[in-house]
Amino acid sequence: MRIGYGGDYNPEQWPREVWDADYSAFELAGIDTVTLGVFAWAHLQPAEDRYDFSTLDAIVERATAEGMRIVPATPSGAMPPWLARAYPEACRVDFEGRRHVYGQRHNACPSSPDFRRLSVALAGRLAERYGDNPAVVAWHVGNEYGGACWCSACGEAFRSWLRERYGSLDRLNHAWNTTFWSHTFTDWAEIVPPNALSEHWRGPNHTAFQGITLDYKRFTSDALLGGFVAEKAAIREHSPHTPVTTNMMGLYQPIDYHRWAPHLDFASWDNYPPEDRSSTRTAARMALAHRLMRGLRGGEPFWVMEQTPSVTASRDVNPVKRPGVLRLWSWQSVANGADAVLYFQLRQSRGACEKYHGAVLDHAGRTDTRVFREVADLGAEFARVGDAVLGARTPARAALLVDWDSWWAVEMSDGPNRNVGYLDVLTTYHRALWQANVPLDVVPVTADLSGYDVVVAPLLHMVKGDLADRVTALVERGGTFVTTALSGRVDEDDNAFLTDVPGPFASLLGLRVEETDAQPPDVVNPVTLFGTEYDARHVFELVVPDDAEVVGTYGTDFYAGTPAVTRASRGRGHAYYVATLLDDAGVAAVLRTALGNLTGPLADVPDVEVTERIAPDGTRHLFVLNHGDPRVVPSPVHGTDLLTGQEFQAGDDINLPTTAVLVIRQSEAVPDPQ
Amino acid sequence: MRIGYGGDYNPEQWPREVWDADYSAFELAGIDTVTLGVFAWAHLQPAEDRYDFSTLDAIVERATAEGMRIVPATPSGAMPPWLARAYPEACRVDFEGRRHVYGQRHNACPSSPDFRRLSVALAGRLAERYGDNPAVVAWHVGNEYGGACWCSACGEAFRSWLRERYGSLDRLNHAWNTTFWSHTFTDWAEIVPPNALSEHWRGPNHTAFQGITLDYKRFTSDALLGGFVAEKAAIREHSPHTPVTTNMMGLYQPIDYHRWAPHLDFASWDNYPPEDRSSTRTAARMALAHRLMRGLRGGEPFWVMEQTPSVTASRDVNPVKRPGVLRLWSWQSVANGADAVLYFQLRQSRGACEKYHGAVLDHAGRTDTRVFREVADLGAEFARVGDAVLGARTPARAALLVDWDSWWAVEMSDGPNRNVGYLDVLTTYHRALWQANVPLDVVPVTADLSGYDVVVAPLLHMVKGDLADRVTALVERGGTFVTTALSGRVDEDDNAFLTDVPGPFASLLGLRVEETDAQPPDVVNPVTLFGTEYDARHVFELVVPDDAEVVGTYGTDFYAGTPAVTRASRGRGHAYYVATLLDDAGVAAVLRTALGNLTGPLADVPDVEVTERIAPDGTRHLFVLNHGDPRVVPSPVHGTDLLTGQEFQAGDDINLPTTAVLVIRQSEAVPDPQ
Amino acid sequence: MRIGYGGDYNPEQWPREVWDADYSAFELAGIDTVTLGVFAWAHLQPAEDRYDFSTLDAIVERATAEGMRIVPATPSGAMPPWLARAYPEACRVDFEGRRHVYGQRHNACPSSPDFRRLSVALAGRLAERYGDNPAVVAWHVGNEYGGACWCSACGEAFRSWLRERYGSLDRLNHAWNTTFWSHTFTDWAEIVPPNALSEHWRGPNHTAFQGITLDYKRFTSDALLGGFVAEKAAIREHSPHTPVTTNMMGLYQPIDYHRWAPHLDFASWDNYPPEDRSSTRTAARMALAHRLMRGLRGGEPFWVMEQTPSVTASRDVNPVKRPGVLRLWSWQSVANGADAVLYFQLRQSRGACEKYHGAVLDHAGRTDTRVFREVADLGAEFARVGDAVLGARTPARAALLVDWDSWWAVEMSDGPNRNVGYLDVLTTYHRALWQANVPLDVVPVTADLSGYDVVVAPLLHMVKGDLADRVTALVERGGTFVTTALSGRVDEDDNAFLTDVPGPFASLLGLRVEETDAQPPDVVNPVTLFGTEYDARHVFELVVPDDAEVVGTYGTDFYAGTPAVTRASRGRGHAYYVATLLDDAGVAAVLRTALGNLTGPLADVPDVEVTERIAPDGTRHLFVLNHGDPRVVPSPVHGTDLLTGQEFQAGDDINLPTTAVLVIRQSEAVPDPQ
Repeated sequence: MRIGYGGDYNPEQWPREVWDADYSAFELAGIDTVTLGVFAWAHLQPAEDRYDFSTLDAIVERATAEGMRIVPATPSGAMPPWLARAYPEACRVDFEGRRHVYGQRHNACPSSPDFRRLSVALAGRLAERYGDNPAVVAWHVGNEYGGACWCSACGEAFRSWLRERYGSLDRLNHAWNTTFWSHTFTDWAEIVPPNALSEHWRGPNHTAFQGITLDYKRFTSDALLGGFVAEKAAIREHSPHTPVTTNMMGLYQPIDYHRWAPHLDFASWDNYPPEDRSSTRTAARMALAHRLMRGLRGGEPFWVMEQTPSVTASRDVNPVKRPGVLRLWSWQSVANGADAVLYFQLRQSRGACEKYHGAVLDHAGRTDTRVFREVADLGAEFARVGDAVLGARTPARAALLVDWDSWWAVEMSDGPNRNVGYLDVLTTYHRALWQANVPLDVVPVTADLSGYDVVVAPLLHMVKGDLADRVTALVERGGTFVTTALSGRVDEDDNAFLTDVPGPFASLLGLRVEETDAQPPDVVNPVTLFGTEYDARHVFELVVPDDAEVVGTYGTDFYAGTPAVTRASRGRGHAYYVATLLDDAGVAAVLRTALGNLTGPLADVPDVEVTERIAPDGTRHLFVLNHGDPRVVPSPVHGTDLLTGQEFQAGDDINLPTTAVLVIRQSEAVPDPQ
Repeated sequence: MRIGYGGDYNPEQWPREVWDADYSAFELAGIDTVTLGVFAWAHLQPAEDRYDFSTLDAIVERATAEGMRIVPATPSGAMPPWLARAYPEACRVDFEGRRHVYGQRHNACPSSPDFRRLSVALAGRLAERYGDNPAVVAWHVGNEYGGACWCSACGEAFRSWLRERYGSLDRLNHAWNTTFWSHTFTDWAEIVPPNALSEHWRGPNHTAFQGITLDYKRFTSDALLGGFVAEKAAIREHSPHTPVTTNMMGLYQPIDYHRWAPHLDFASWDNYPPEDRSSTRTAARMALAHRLMRGLRGGEPFWVMEQTPSVTASRDVNPVKRPGVLRLWSWQSVANGADAVLYFQLRQSRGACEKYHGAVLDHAGRTDTRVFREVADLGAEFARVGDAVLGARTPARAALLVDWDSWWAVEMSDGPNRNVGYLDVLTTYHRALWQANVPLDVVPVTADLSGYDVVVAPLLHMVKGDLADRVTALVERGGTFVTTALSGRVDEDDNAFLTDVPGPFASLLGLRVEETDAQPPDVVNPVTLFGTEYDARHVFELVVPDDAEVVGTYGTDFYAGTPAVTRASRGRGHAYYVATLLDDAGVAAVLRTALGNLTGPLADVPDVEVTERIAPDGTRHLFVLNHGDPRVVPSPVHGTDLLTGQEFQAGDDINLPTTAVLVIRQSEAVPDPQ
Repeated sequence: MRIGYGGDYNPEQWPREVWDADYSAFELAGIDTVTLGVFAWAHLQPAEDRYDFSTLDAIVERATAEGMRIVPATPSGAMPPWLARAYPEACRVDFEGRRHVYGQRHNACPSSPDFRRLSVALAGRLAERYGDNPAVVAWHVGNEYGGACWCSACGEAFRSWLRERYGSLDRLNHAWNTTFWSHTFTDWAEIVPPNALSEHWRGPNHTAFQGITLDYKRFTSDALLGGFVAEKAAIREHSPHTPVTTNMMGLYQPIDYHRWAPHLDFASWDNYPPEDRSSTRTAARMALAHRLMRGLRGGEPFWVMEQTPSVTASRDVNPVKRPGVLRLWSWQSVANGADAVLYFQLRQSRGACEKYHGAVLDHAGRTDTRVFREVADLGAEFARVGDAVLGARTPARAALLVDWDSWWAVEMSDGPNRNVGYLDVLTTYHRALWQANVPLDVVPVTADLSGYDVVVAPLLHMVKGDLADRVTALVERGGTFVTTALSGRVDEDDNAFLTDVPGPFASLLGLRVEETDAQPPDVVNPVTLFGTEYDARHVFELVVPDDAEVVGTYGTDFYAGTPAVTRASRGRGHAYYVATLLDDAGVAAVLRTALGNLTGPLADVPDVEVTERIAPDGTRHLFVLNHGDPRVVPSPVHGTDLLTGQEFQAGDDINLPTTAVLVIRQSEAVPDPQ
């Protein structure tokens, strides 16, 4: 066994002679894993009453014969034309209230009984047919679940979901604060999905009633999950032991992956970082997504189910990955917990919207291209490392909290400032932790915090359940808590706490926020922290400290000199409040203080990422990745680089060219962290 | 009696113990006026056949007992869910032709017979129940009327409105110039509302036929007014003497408030100035809106029905009002004619889209906040001033003409330049008048001009009725008229005058406009006026003077040296034409010349607003407001500042810190201006 | 006979006394041609069962009596209200899937049988009534055909069109690559028009399946053509010899004019250049459009059917034409092959959306305006030149290929870069040829290339039929071929060639493109050509030369030093490949080298356009047009300027003020080029 390597493979789109060429190339590239049948529905079931597995049989037979690890997909990510024609209501109604007709993918109404019935039946048939093939290592259900539907069937399903959640209209009316603007519902049937024709203005983030819109997001996440769960159940009937997953999308706003996590046997995701000219920002963002995925299943390894070997196609501008970047980013996946690294796609599509998306094999099928060479070199490296890091984990004493409800709530809030993006703030805080190479868990607000020394929770707008108690306990026992402006504002229903801001955290933080000023993006209020000035923007809370110590102060405006950053001491620990949105350096300054000695190796070396994975047998592997310019760093450990065989003593110079990767097996194992 | 002070109050959203806290706070703040029941429909009528006034009874009883002045609202600004479900056609069809379902507010079709019936019935019941309560000082119908509907019922109502207006299709075809593009209507039923599915492209301001779109705007204004009038009539049946109003929105394009004015017993409006970093620009804009509102009812005092004590919530960025600004702007309202200054809202909403909108009492209900303190201090000042300025008026010998038809016509015109905004030009001209502290009426084009010495009419695109004659008479008797580029272009039907431009004004102005050049916003043509160069932009008319004197000339392009500003002498007066859009300083230069000695006190002191209100007994009150940096100015009068008791002789230094306000009762009264 | 001069004339919109004034003015202006009845449908047929030609009879009678050349229009560009009411399905369904109701123009569904029947019947009646009037010189069908419809009737027509094109669903499925995303169609009825409700996202250029969208563009072009062809046939029944045309729109993306060309008796178009502050860029663009129109009919003269004498109205900003520009641009039309130059409009509209569009006669009907004077002066010049250039042609040895399929395909492609615009690149290459005054044909890819020495084909994304063979033959016999990045990518179905890029051109060009890098617009990679650096942007192909010579190289990034421009020698000729998008100067540098001695007169004089037209009798006329600043140039020929009578010897100084125009009849005629 070794790190899974391969990707989406669609030989049904090609004549048999191409299959031969494919396998020759796979061998050159060290590819051992194929995902089969994504989007093959029309192929597998050309009519409602007719299945045809003949080609897929041949594909599976060949893959098996070639020794591939096989990941069969269910094809529910794209319905066939006959289905849309037979069941027009299986197509979605969009945010504008328009019923769509046949086209694109990810287009099925999650509440359509016909779509559900047909997709589940096909999943069952696939499992029945291929479930006992020992080459099948995992099931891949659907594809990149997402989007939403606002049809009347979803309306009905939403009302059922609401009955389940609230029990009574009184409770619902209270939750949504419907006395405002005369919205008191007197019959469940009066409730319609919130969209451009009902509660919204200026798009999905502008709603008259945050409550209904927030619940519709929760409902949609659950409704899509319903499809996954139903297909998984059908697979389980025939394939009871093979793990089932779906390819998620990392930092994807529309779906609350924390609600999905219990239903996944392992996590997997598609790594297509958005365009960003800063390679460090991109690297940090990918690391955050890897860690979020790793955090879904309590730190278990995950798969990168897709990445492009070179270019994407759907962006406005699709640059090629620079030399070395594919390798660097692939190893970064592994460094952050991936046990498999797959491509979309093994052979480039002939036509339609992804024909220019990169692939291991281009239209001419060449194996003498730069891209293929980089793919093959990486395959060779994976082979060299073998199973060394499979199943390895990354213990952490610091946690970053991610909360989809807060993400949704803060971005659909009217006031104080539409320029505040949850992900912007989250990635800023994460970047400082990542830059310091802090071993870090990225976990939901429901996570057990008892194992952490530091918990960082930016923009924790909504505070649910006993979170405040758990955070207080963390601090009392000597831990550190860091939160920011716009946290502690609303309860689970998105209603304001009728107390001082920041609500349940006010007493822990030893302060109240009396006012919240907001300014356009070009307005900077300098904040002085530890003698240095940093830029703050967007939101400026006016803090009235109770017993909190003032750590930083505003520099201008009528609140110049008042607290911008505070620290309260509680028990043996500390609770920091950052009452504004600081720039990168300001956030780093706060977090470095808050972290104390919890920073990782080479914390002060810019652009060099260091992570550790500890194998089940206790062997420690240190990954050193250079996302920036060439530099020389001291080795943090004794050990041997698995990629080159080079040995290092702690403190030895390590030469890090741009895109350098080292996987250092440390000389002394640690005890099993379990 | 004193200046009304209070605001929107919704105790039905809170438990009774909160009511107690509210009234304690109101007493601290000097609040004596509450607007009750805005958006309370679902509460008051939980089903079509069931009314429930029990809570409102308690609210009114308590408010009465507390000595409040009560302004009951009719709740027609937001329909309840049961109504939308029972009568789906009561919901609007939007500009895109989509029937909306239940959501938001201001969402009722003005032509819906069901909505009309139900809203009027409820208004009648409210008046029946509370009309004889002596604490009720005014009725507030609906809320911020606005928007439009394009449904088939509106189509039918529009056709009736057109029959009424035009009598025959021939007249309509001529008015809309339908021979252009084969639009000759041969049956009334062929006429459909103009929207994105019929005459429009690129949105509401781009239409193939300006005539139908203009008439639809007039129709919509009348249709919404129809709802107000019907509710008012129902109120009048039970409450024959209490004045009825609705809260308007100042410089609001969609509704022609001049068409509404005769139906209002007094004017009131909601003062939420748009984001503008220049406090002077904001102050001037608010002054314009106050004066427009004051002008609706011949100079009678009006109410500010809403303003926020601190932040708004619906803007992208919602800054807090800086210290002193609430007081300054509230006094500015009074200085410009308000007899009441109310807040939205007295207690901050718990949830939904206005939960972060500012309030007198925040979520924690604190009375020790900066905002509450400023509110309370202002309440104390209002108490101190008492009834001194109630009913006081501001005589003016200068008028600024505002014309919704011109506003609509010039902004939906194809050619010459879409970057010309009516409000931009109007506010530029007003700002120069405001800066000069000219006592000013802002009046419709139908106003009696016989009492004015100077009439300023920017962008008077459409010329209706006998306006040109009245303007000519003004000039002949020694008055001054100032108008601008793009004036005098079209008749009441938006058809071009088939004469030289500017149509009915050409002879008065002594010139013709032969061509109209237009340029992008970054192109400046310098105009030399009285030896100084000013920037001109957007539109450059090429003027052929007849007997007009050339006052300013263009500096560049093929028309360099030709007239940009002219003055014609007629009888004892003058008529100015500004053939381009000048910058602030250029407009000020023209207007200072045109005004002659009509400027007000401290006309040359930047950012200091001075207005006068003369009480019914003839007492003169001079308001001095500093919207800018601290400065010292000479007192323009002898008198006593009602806020501090300080006495001034004319010429004494007045120290004006930022946001300073003085209300100087002048030592010598003048005779009653009536 | 002389150059046709006049324009759109709508006396039916005016009382008879205005007609008298019109003709007096026409005489002053030398106007001899009138286009009648555009948009007169409602007027001519006030009800389905009633025609009324009385006014048009009078109009035609008067025009005939006045000696006008008459161009009757069919009015199908705008349906009357009664038609839309009687046949709601004659109105279009838009890209968003919304059925429109009555409004605007160009609004008829091309698949509506009712619209077709009624429009054809009226065309037949017009031809029957006026076809034998000898003053009728041409028929003008419809107006500015364009737009599209997505209704179910169009869906049905599209499916028929597809059956015709593909014969079988298997062939269609292969063409559209439907195995991708499970789109395999198993019944023709499953196919729906591609729009926002089916295959599209983010608008018309973003589709999941390029194949269906491309075919819908082809279908739409054909469907609109169907209307033209049917009306033409009806006219032909009564007017068998008079030529029939329609006014096209030059560089208009939605219609493939090459598919229309065989059905036109002569080409005509409306010249409204888009706003561009560079007069040279505008001039070059108009020249390209003229040449494209000339190329539709094998080099035959065409008409400018519309241009404005001064301003447009539909733009955001509508500047006046500067003095001399109307004359310069009108002569430019003639210089590039026009035999008639007409205006929209002869008298300015009274109302609706074109009331501010310029006209020969303004609202006041003045003939003493600058615009009228320029119109009249030009009329006098046309009279002076008489028939000298009528029917004259412009032989060329260089060709620029234009291909609507490539235009559509490259702009709807996902990847590599959405910032690449076909027209941007085409106009850049044309501008370099125009600046060099190269006699140039602008022709389709199906054109016979055997007469050319140089063929330039930018962004030839799609390669169809035997084009590669014909290009290869051109090069083999000593010609030169120039093509660019993103050429040779897809076949006629928009599927990638399964070979090295650039597909069928790879062998001719002696290279393969291994990767295509893309960058945002602000990223420049300098390309060094012949020792000089030029800017390249957007797309950077990484070229692996086979036997191509490297002409230019990239300056930065990991591919610095690799080929950016290459030249392969084949037979006696050369094939250039420009693997990136160069700036103007870079393109000019490549083309100057490629052209060798094929440049025209004054090729190095900026902004001076020189073209030649050779009359049927062999007389050569050299047009010299100055689009830039004043300058003096040597006369390229011996001859006499027809406008001034001035004689020149070759080499004499010609004084060229701004907007100068000379029409030099050369002293020695050449043999008939036929």
